[in-house]
Amino acid sequence: MEKLELLPLKDIRLDDPFWNKYTRLVTKEIIPYQWETLNDRVPDAEPSHCISNFQVAAGLKEGTFEGAVFQDTDVAKWLEAVAYSLSYEPDAALEQTADEVIELIGKAQQPDGYINTHFTILAPEHRWANLREGHELYTAGHLLEAAVAYYKVTGKDRFLNIMRRFADLICDVFHQEKYSRAVPGHQEVEIGLIKLAEVTGDRKYMDMAKDFIDRRGCEPNYLVTEHENPLWINIFKDVKPFLPAYSQCHKPVREQDTAEGHSVRATYMYCAMADLAAAYDDRELLDACKRLWDNIVEKRMYITGGIGSSGAYERFTTDYDLPNDCNYSESCASIGLALFSRRMAQITRDGKYIDTMERALYNTVLAGIAMDGKSFFYVNPLEVWPDNCLEHTSMEHVKPVRQKWFGVACCPPNIARTLASLGEYVYFRKDDCLWVNLYLSGETVLQTEDGSATVTQKTRFPFEGKTELHISSGTGHPVRLALRVPAYAEGFTVTEGGAEIPVNIRDGYAYLTGTFTDTTLTVTFAMPARIVYANPNVRADAGKAAIVKGPLVYCLEEADNGNRLAGIYLDTARPLEEAYTDSLLGGTCIIKAKGKKLSEKGWDGHTLYAAKPPVLEDTDLTFIPYCYWDNRGGGEMSVWVKYLT
Amino acid sequence: MEKLELLPLKDIRLDDPFWNKYTRLVTKEIIPYQWETLNDRVPDAEPSHCISNFQVAAGLKEGTFEGAVFQDTDVAKWLEAVAYSLSYEPDAALEQTADEVIELIGKAQQPDGYINTHFTILAPEHRWANLREGHELYTAGHLLEAAVAYYKVTGKDRFLNIMRRFADLICDVFHQEKYSRAVPGHQEVEIGLIKLAEVTGDRKYMDMAKDFIDRRGCEPNYLVTEHENPLWINIFKDVKPFLPAYSQCHKPVREQDTAEGHSVRATYMYCAMADLAAAYDDRELLDACKRLWDNIVEKRMYITGGIGSSGAYERFTTDYDLPNDCNYSESCASIGLALFSRRMAQITRDGKYIDTMERALYNTVLAGIAMDGKSFFYVNPLEVWPDNCLEHTSMEHVKPVRQKWFGVACCPPNIARTLASLGEYVYFRKDDCLWVNLYLSGETVLQTEDGSATVTQKTRFPFEGKTELHISSGTGHPVRLALRVPAYAEGFTVTEGGAEIPVNIRDGYAYLTGTFTDTTLTVTFAMPARIVYANPNVRADAGKAAIVKGPLVYCLEEADNGNRLAGIYLDTARPLEEAYTDSLLGGTCIIKAKGKKLSEKGWDGHTLYAAKPPVLEDTDLTFIPYCYWDNRGGGEMSVWVKYLT
Repeated sequence: MEKLELLPLKDIRLDDPFWNKYTRLVTKEIIPYQWETLNDRVPDAEPSHCISNFQVAAGLKEGTFEGAVFQDTDVAKWLEAVAYSLSYEPDAALEQTADEVIELIGKAQQPDGYINTHFTILAPEHRWANLREGHELYTAGHLLEAAVAYYKVTGKDRFLNIMRRFADLICDVFHQEKYSRAVPGHQEVEIGLIKLAEVTGDRKYMDMAKDFIDRRGCEPNYLVTEHENPLWINIFKDVKPFLPAYSQCHKPVREQDTAEGHSVRATYMYCAMADLAAAYDDRELLDACKRLWDNIVEKRMYITGGIGSSGAYERFTTDYDLPNDCNYSESCASIGLALFSRRMAQITRDGKYIDTMERALYNTVLAGIAMDGKSFFYVNPLEVWPDNCLEHTSMEHVKPVRQKWFGVACCPPNIARTLASLGEYVYFRKDDCLWVNLYLSGETVLQTEDGSATVTQKTRFPFEGKTELHISSGTGHPVRLALRVPAYAEGFTVTEGGAEIPVNIRDGYAYLTGTFTDTTLTVTFAMPARIVYANPNVRADAGKAAIVKGPLVYCLEEADNGNRLAGIYLDTARPLEEAYTDSLLGGTCIIKAKGKKLSEKGWDGHTLYAAKPPVLEDTDLTFIPYCYWDNRGGGEMSVWVKYLT
Repeated sequence: MEKLELLPLKDIRLDDPFWNKYTRLVTKEIIPYQWETLNDRVPDAEPSHCISNFQVAAGLKEGTFEGAVFQDTDVAKWLEAVAYSLSYEPDAALEQTADEVIELIGKAQQPDGYINTHFTILAPEHRWANLREGHELYTAGHLLEAAVAYYKVTGKDRFLNIMRRFADLICDVFHQEKYSRAVPGHQEVEIGLIKLAEVTGDRKYMDMAKDFIDRRGCEPNYLVTEHENPLWINIFKDVKPFLPAYSQCHKPVREQDTAEGHSVRATYMYCAMADLAAAYDDRELLDACKRLWDNIVEKRMYITGGIGSSGAYERFTTDYDLPNDCNYSESCASIGLALFSRRMAQITRDGKYIDTMERALYNTVLAGIAMDGKSFFYVNPLEVWPDNCLEHTSMEHVKPVRQKWFGVACCPPNIARTLASLGEYVYFRKDDCLWVNLYLSGETVLQTEDGSATVTQKTRFPFEGKTELHISSGTGHPVRLALRVPAYAEGFTVTEGGAEIPVNIRDGYAYLTGTFTDTTLTVTFAMPARIVYANPNVRADAGKAAIVKGPLVYCLEEADNGNRLAGIYLDTARPLEEAYTDSLLGGTCIIKAKGKKLSEKGWDGHTLYAAKPPVLEDTDLTFIPYCYWDNRGGGEMSVWVKYLT
């Protein structure tokens, strides 16, 4: 299977009015802030112990391990984000710091190549003895991803070599007889091994990843009986009995056709499955990926690209079960969905996968971070009534406002590495052809076999559906273009000097006939604000509508619409009015609509139930992009709104 | 404060077409079945170990304690239900069995009077050392209630004397300096001590109950710091940090004005507070009761009389937070609410309290038990979609069908004792005046100072609002009558020989002027099926309506209305049609209505979100009483239904 390639990040320079405010947070706010947290220097924040753990494991200081069993991943994700950020904002001091951290990791590496501060310090004899909970392979996967990213951007191979030694150990250990059926409890190492194989050209890492995927869910089921090993020690004291589906080992992966269990684990596994399907030309595995993706996107995904309907176990539940106020929809799970969708598009060249990738990125992933970069959502509800988001209730996982960085932080650094590597989502390439997935301003160099061309995008997307594409081929080498036609695009055209040029639209991409050297193309489509409805099997959304514009899902906030948003009805017969305003949320397009609202007027405050309905009053409604919610001081929020019958 | 009295159960003989099918289950099904479970003789059921534990504690057999720390309460609630049942269905063999169990309890009693098989067998040195979790006083309370009930019905004082010795020990222990601030973690002993004081006339038990109530929530807060006692041992391993509000000790009870924490604990405490307010003429305590009751009924109670909105911690949450599909609303909590409301009515003579008592009894309490008496709901949702009630999700506490008796069963025996003592809810008395709270067929003897009168009710309530009251005073002693005027009653009249007689309606009771010896009165009021709406602050019910008829709340079931009940709209402009049918659910009044339903027609099954709304189709709706739901094989259910705007 031929897979479209990602462009090297160093060849992509994004400069986009919509995205800049987020991508700049990575270098300005998040990376420096996380560095302080890794070093336990943030007052009022729970210490992370991350650097300290490595120092202790390296024998550089006295002390013990502290933090969660997967604490090392914070360092890995930080390094990965640093690597990506260096590709677009070189920073010698930061690179120097990163090099020092890499040296520290090297010093903490054990003679046989093993790296994990928790087990090295606390329980060296229990290495690999509890894959279900131990997260050693998960941690290894994040370190591998970081090492590959750092190598690709900086060209320095120190980190890569450290991790290659660890990967060699993993390959040795997990081909021993006693581990011949072993798989990680939390998938992630597969992605890291695949990336290592790609960058080193050494297929054995890919084979190891494939083994992990092929073994998973087969009988005898390693994770199910692992605790019978005398060296197994319980790590998470309050976790209930092991559920195979929670870790997607309830059946062989090729037989899975519904997305089950912990949604981050699931999507990370699907990413590896897609990569392996392509690498081994494995149609059966690709079919499983397609079924699982379809199941998510047709039956188990929020309109915001959130996944994981249950707070307990952060998991998928059942088809059409999409409650809006008590869901989990972890930011990391939507990142996983974007990564999986991107891989599926690389393999199939079908733009429908990009539609979903874009949905996740523009809504749930962005909502995960405050516009000042200082607070984060792990859980992404579509409806919030702050009063009932109480500690020690069934709603306690839902936070009505973003939270500061935690001691153990999975989502914030994951969002950071995603924003820092945004370029990887914008383009694909194959030979001299550039696939444009996202309309997003910036300049990109396409290296062709015997030259290069620069492609510049200039757009006000997602607020306007018009993009100028400037192609400049200094060496005269022509490029071909495939431009994504989003599912929401109306009247897609490409013009050159005012004249429409013919395109061949196939599976969500417009393939331009001919090649281009130096020219300017204008891509235009309409993407007016629209009212959408959910499949009538989605009980939670019955009788409700949502407003979208292009990839953006909109929401009502209390700041604009008062409280009791559940009492609002949209008048779907009245036109929506789009208005771009510079003064709100750093400049955004809001949507005005007409509706009615249940009033408290005339209702006796001492009466809970009465025979007379509350009065409906006319009301003006203002919708803002969901990604921007909770940037104006809390309050109620709702994506879905009732409509008048 | 003068409190209206309950009539002795032995003077009440109920024979009611609506209630018989439930009350007869108690003697026919529940008591015999529970006796088998107490003796671990039910195949396929988790053993309860209850009788075995008492035998071990009594030294009659070898073995150890098994089951939950409050396992003894199953025996207590069984004995209490047996006592009540003997009042209306004498059964010598059953009474003999009960006597033997009482002897066994006596043998398990320790030399100092202590009774608790868990601590006696497993941890005698840890007695009273963990009141937060140990449930010793809770268990004592249930045994006290059982002993008082058994004494009142049978006149035998063996059990009462056993428990009096235990109560004496409790009074001694909890007046020692080291326990001078101690209170039970789970309230219940207060009710038992109060009943013991009432039946023995010994005020010291009442004083002990009052101390427990007065100490509660005062600083230093005993339960908060109790674990510092070196004898304290953790009992519930997976319970998170102690939350004072969970046990209603977050502030002194007199200062509490919102219902907080675990809803069963809360209502049991409020019962004791009400009793004590009356016994000590304590206006401040009564005011607290009124505030707490108002908070529940005006802001935190489901239309079905369910309370406790959060599955986690089975607790109250915040005002107007009444989610319909993920609530707890434990059957026991509604029993507690009925008991509390009855006490408030006894004290205040205000029928509004009976309205709520009746709401809880006719809806949540009855829904708790299947019509064959063989399965039970602990959790009482108002909306169920069976597909999403999955194990190991946030919804796992919600069971879409009733469950068989558990090893540790709190709700089933609580429902049993409630049904068996139903007579105590029907009447109050004071001197020669009988207060009729519930219209319910049966015969009652009112013992007056120098004679007696028999009052017979004949009614088809709650399906008809007409009751014949026959008064027969063999001894010629006249009685006076106060007849409840429910809040839902329209056009309340009382006639004698066809002629309307004047009544003085005050606080929900119609006081009949004059006295009655031998006559027949006809009480008539209309209670047509009605559409009701929730306070617009109840987010979960915005835009929704419910149907009620008298005390009965109605619901839609899949059996009558197909699935996807969330897509149904009631047409509130069209009349409701009531139809009594003998063929359904043992004879009931169903309600027919017109409406519309979102259709799947024309919706592409592969599409989750689309720009065209689902089509609305006309539909006929059938509502059945909520108490009867899930008696026809599962499926969706919903109390609240959208209405057309």
